[in-house]
Amino acid sequence: MELQPLFNYINQFVQLTPEDESILAAKVKIRKYLKGQFVVQNGDICKYENFVLSGCLKTFYIDNDGQEHIAMFAIENWWTADMSSFITQTPADYNIQCLENTVLAQIYYEDLEQFYIQIPKLERFFRIIIQKAYISSQKRVISNFSLPAKERYLQFREKYPQIEQRVPQYMIASYLGITKEFLSKIRSQLIVE
Amino acid sequence: MELQPLFNYINQFVQLTPEDESILAAKVKIRKYLKGQFVVQNGDICKYENFVLSGCLKTFYIDNDGQEHIAMFAIENWWTADMSSFITQTPADYNIQCLENTVLAQIYYEDLEQFYIQIPKLERFFRIIIQKAYISSQKRVISNFSLPAKERYLQFREKYPQIEQRVPQYMIASYLGITKEFLSKIRSQLIVE
Repeated sequence: MELQPLFNYINQFVQLTPEDESILAAKVKIRKYLKGQFVVQNGDICKYENFVLSGCLKTFYIDNDGQEHIAMFAIENWWTADMSSFITQTPADYNIQCLENTVLAQIYYEDLEQFYIQIPKLERFFRIIIQKAYISSQKRVISNFSLPAKERYLQFREKYPQIEQRVPQYMIASYLGITKEFLSKIRSQLIVE
Repeated sequence: MELQPLFNYINQFVQLTPEDESILAAKVKIRKYLKGQFVVQNGDICKYENFVLSGCLKTFYIDNDGQEHIAMFAIENWWTADMSSFITQTPADYNIQCLENTVLAQIYYEDLEQFYIQIPKLERFFRIIIQKAYISSQKRVISNFSLPAKERYLQFREKYPQIEQRVPQYMIASYLGITKEFLSKIRSQLIVE
């Protein structure tokens, strides 16, 4: 059953009954993307909340100078969306692009609103998931202001060892808010230490 | 009834019954703070989620150089907490301090967990509230990167006209991530225009 990883994930927080799973399975779409394809593009409306069944994605925005800033990555068992666009159904600020061939379980906005009514425990589930996302974004703001780049890189490696291995270095530099040359210097120093 | 503004606020999103209100009233604490007092201090655990009945607060952190960075303000009908500390019951990164004499409705962590069981519609309420907080923090990251300081200031004034009037300019500068001299320059330019 292709959606099993999604059910397993949700079951960590609330207990889905077989009936709940059927309701979800009838509506949740599985969609395959090739490396390089976009799940959301800046200016479009983010129509679905995405659970990663396999693959790897980056969420980024382009500043006024055309520079790309990576806000987050996502791999298996992560959720990814432009949350603001999804919740308010207004144009997205962010782009979400596949860094590998990727398979997503997609929940459409209207279906999710319906799920909240049919499976009220999903209110709890998404409340907890969004709390986690919010906490993680707050922690990131703090560490961007208060930790030197080397510490931020070490934290990233420790927290997301799988992403470090799957994503090019220049994207990790963008995520950390430093140049790829500076990241390369930090990495050489760490090898010597 | 002192908690009426809290009930009115919640009723915008879910419908509380008189029984729900009694359950809340039995546990939600009302606490008065003087200007200058701290609701949360960095390193302590944030024990309660706070709804502002009256007053004004700032949430800030201190970087390694001892510099204060204001992450958010809160006035009547806003929620304020170090969400990460509150949810995980671990030491806070942020400080929350009263800028005026302030009255808060405080929900203790254990009580909130109990409320979710006794009043399941509060799952929906807090899911929506946390979504809003998350969206607003994401929008702020984007505008910090992509908008010039003058635009950020105009956005702030438009979005939070009441805060602009109640908070000293140097704190608004800190919130915008600029010096108070630069904010003062922006303001003089705007008067001329």
